Amino acid sequence: MAKDNKKLVEAITSMDEDFAQWYTDVVKKAELIDYSSVKGCMIIKPAGYAIWENIQKELDRRFKETGVENVYMPMFIPESLLEKEKDHVEGFAPEVAWVTHGGLNPLQERLCVRPTSETLFCDFYKNIIQSYRDLPKVYNQWCSVVRWEKETRPFLRSREFLWQEGHTAHATAEEAEERTVQMLNLYADFCEEVLAMPVIRGRKTEKEKFAGAEATYTIEALMHDGKALQSGTSHNFGDGFAKAFGIQYTDKDNKLQYVHQTSWGMTTRLIGAIIMVHGDDSGLVLPPRIAPVQAMVIPIQQHKEGVLEKAQEVCEALGKVCRAKLDDSDKSPGWKFSEQEMRGIPVRIELGPKDIEAGKCVVVRRDTREKLEISLDELTEKLPVVLETIQKEMFERAKAHRDAHIWDAHNYDELKDIAANKPGFIRGMWCEDQACEDKIKEELAVTSRCMPFSDQEQIASTCVCCGKPAHKLVYWGKAY
Amino acid sequence: MAKDNKKLVEAITSMDEDFAQWYTDVVKKAELIDYSSVKGCMIIKPAGYAIWENIQKELDRRFKETGVENVYMPMFIPESLLEKEKDHVEGFAPEVAWVTHGGLNPLQERLCVRPTSETLFCDFYKNIIQSYRDLPKVYNQWCSVVRWEKETRPFLRSREFLWQEGHTAHATAEEAEERTVQMLNLYADFCEEVLAMPVIRGRKTEKEKFAGAEATYTIEALMHDGKALQSGTSHNFGDGFAKAFGIQYTDKDNKLQYVHQTSWGMTTRLIGAIIMVHGDDSGLVLPPRIAPVQAMVIPIQQHKEGVLEKAQEVCEALGKVCRAKLDDSDKSPGWKFSEQEMRGIPVRIELGPKDIEAGKCVVVRRDTREKLEISLDELTEKLPVVLETIQKEMFERAKAHRDAHIWDAHNYDELKDIAANKPGFIRGMWCEDQACEDKIKEELAVTSRCMPFSDQEQIASTCVCCGKPAHKLVYWGKAY
Repeated sequence: MAKDNKKLVEAITSMDEDFAQWYTDVVKKAELIDYSSVKGCMIIKPAGYAIWENIQKELDRRFKETGVENVYMPMFIPESLLEKEKDHVEGFAPEVAWVTHGGLNPLQERLCVRPTSETLFCDFYKNIIQSYRDLPKVYNQWCSVVRWEKETRPFLRSREFLWQEGHTAHATAEEAEERTVQMLNLYADFCEEVLAMPVIRGRKTEKEKFAGAEATYTIEALMHDGKALQSGTSHNFGDGFAKAFGIQYTDKDNKLQYVHQTSWGMTTRLIGAIIMVHGDDSGLVLPPRIAPVQAMVIPIQQHKEGVLEKAQEVCEALGKVCRAKLDDSDKSPGWKFSEQEMRGIPVRIELGPKDIEAGKCVVVRRDTREKLEISLDELTEKLPVVLETIQKEMFERAKAHRDAHIWDAHNYDELKDIAANKPGFIRGMWCEDQACEDKIKEELAVTSRCMPFSDQEQIASTCVCCGKPAHKLVYWGKAY
Repeated sequence: MAKDNKKLVEAITSMDEDFAQWYTDVVKKAELIDYSSVKGCMIIKPAGYAIWENIQKELDRRFKETGVENVYMPMFIPESLLEKEKDHVEGFAPEVAWVTHGGLNPLQERLCVRPTSETLFCDFYKNIIQSYRDLPKVYNQWCSVVRWEKETRPFLRSREFLWQEGHTAHATAEEAEERTVQMLNLYADFCEEVLAMPVIRGRKTEKEKFAGAEATYTIEALMHDGKALQSGTSHNFGDGFAKAFGIQYTDKDNKLQYVHQTSWGMTTRLIGAIIMVHGDDSGLVLPPRIAPVQAMVIPIQQHKEGVLEKAQEVCEALGKVCRAKLDDSDKSPGWKFSEQEMRGIPVRIELGPKDIEAGKCVVVRRDTREKLEISLDELTEKLPVVLETIQKEMFERAKAHRDAHIWDAHNYDELKDIAANKPGFIRGMWCEDQACEDKIKEELAVTSRCMPFSDQEQIASTCVCCGKPAHKLVYWGKAY
């Protein structure tokens, strides 16, 4: 047995016992990542990168349907350029990596490795936008960015991570707002439809918004341990960056106007979300639509005549209706089952001599472990249905779990009690005074996650913190 | 008219007059790139990036067919790791960018931004390879790399560029050699089949091989100006890196062995190659298989009733058989023609009221400017044939041009004369002494491009430089 397999059968830490350790065990044992000799940077292994490729493919397709075009900007930002927008530089300068030497010579001006590319896009837009005919610009790039974090965790917070960053420029404030919301909704739909992960769509408070933005919209998902994960953000910059960088266009009346801008991004952190929403004590559980391998065919007694051939035949036929793979290694079926479970492959197909004789196979769902006997004649017809059922039920279970962990707090005592004892989202009214937000964060260690779009019912008329009149409903929570 | 269009109609520099300026004009006016405020780094614009996306898609598909798996490694390399293989660090240290600060603090050890990732992969393989069962590892990553070049040119040589780098580890020297050659052939086939660009496959001399490699194989293409472009390389490292990094596995007899490694890469420089092999004085000419838009439908007298509707209908129907787009902007047809030509879109489809009445359209080939009248009923059937014909003929023309610019030199006088007067590849025998190679480079400004696999005929028995006995045929040339 290879060394990795030995490790595999040792029980991973139970999630109820130590969720953080369970998470670390899963990312390692499902072979999603490895640590590197660069502190805080991870190696994304084939099983992890294939998930990211599927995320990219599907998001990119959805982007392009809305008119997004891809570009590539330099990875370096001159210090003077980063400094052009005041809030932005204050937000990012403390956590960037600085290049000071090129080859054997010191640079005249130091360059930071992009933590995000607003400033580069602004510099670019300033040069290519002259007339209203040049608008809108709806550009996106897939790249890696660097933020010099002190505490890191695989996928969730690392010094380098992969993402996409969209940057747009529009003639009017209305159009920019529309694009900001459109992309947030695109993200939310993607999470729900493809990752089977329910999200709450809302707006960040002033305190929590992006450095330099007028408004930040967010989708917030609930992890299995009751902590929130910010899973995608979309920012409306208004004309703040345009004024700082001088991005103007001539309108139809030949007047100079500032453009209105947005940016929006999603990252490899989504892989962390998938793990923490769907995983269990046997490892990863992947929603079929994002799984690199959807069905693993595992022959039983594969040394017996005809078994491997039949398994190959079944796998090939399945390859036409889903992403199927055959495990014909010389490991025992038991090992193979554990591996398939650890890696979160949505179904395995067990096929032995008796099954072949009976013209059937056993399909085992990863999510529920339910066993289905399916006739080999009907397999290519029925398996896609099974996969869609899994996808749908995984979303429903995640949503039921999320909904069962949303608590209402009407006053500070309730808030305090829930924050201490009930993991999940806390709904509470807020007076819009940052002092209350600060106090809640400091005393109860929960932060405002968002002011939801769809759920602005008044669950009380007073602030959950200070008791003064309040009109905004906020989702509070502990966050990754 | 927008400013860009005004620029467009000003004649670009003729390639015969000033090839370098022609190249710069095309990359700018076909809107492939823009310069950035980071010296030596370029912005890849949508029209340029879409070509790269097509290159990625097709190469990645071919990689995966040979068992390649994608991963992602950190972009930083600690100085001590870079230094582990002596030749490698000597080759790269003078041209790397150094990160010395993270956030507000100086780093304990400086990090270079990867110029290539051999050292990171070795460090990774050392940790994940224990047994012969763990082999082979055939990993690849798509990323950007940084080399602090002094002189830069868009796509051809820039401080940051996009590429893929494959890194493999094998049990035996034979298997490593086989993979090295396999990938070189994959690259060559891709260039010829997809980019319509003939290449010479061969081996680099000791002087020109990659820092740390035992052998470097290369494909060399001839640009329109007679200069060579190294278009892809594949390296066999033997066990040199394995020994430097201690990458060992236990073989079937339970003995410790060093792995044998390879690496291979292709870059955005390929876009420069496409421009310089196929372009003409009207701009870019894209081979259909790589063109982001293959057919541009351009309505004539689009204000007349029914024209735009019919053009939309035609475009939609074409969308099922090729990548088609409609230009329904308010520019004149003449402008649209120039734009389509500048951007190298393989065919345009002209459709006016009279055409519609006659049930036909005019298809104009970008490569030959040939006009074809095609019945609208037959368009979806015939256009793919036209595109395939263009693809085939572009390759044939490029090959004829290349073959007409290969000259044989039998002695130093001939070599000197050809190097001075005849642009192209020069075939000449070489005694394998680096002194001759150095002399030729210094005195005649031509370098050894490769020792071709397929063409080891003895065109003479003596070295083209020193006159001593020689057995190796070398392609010499001026190179980008």
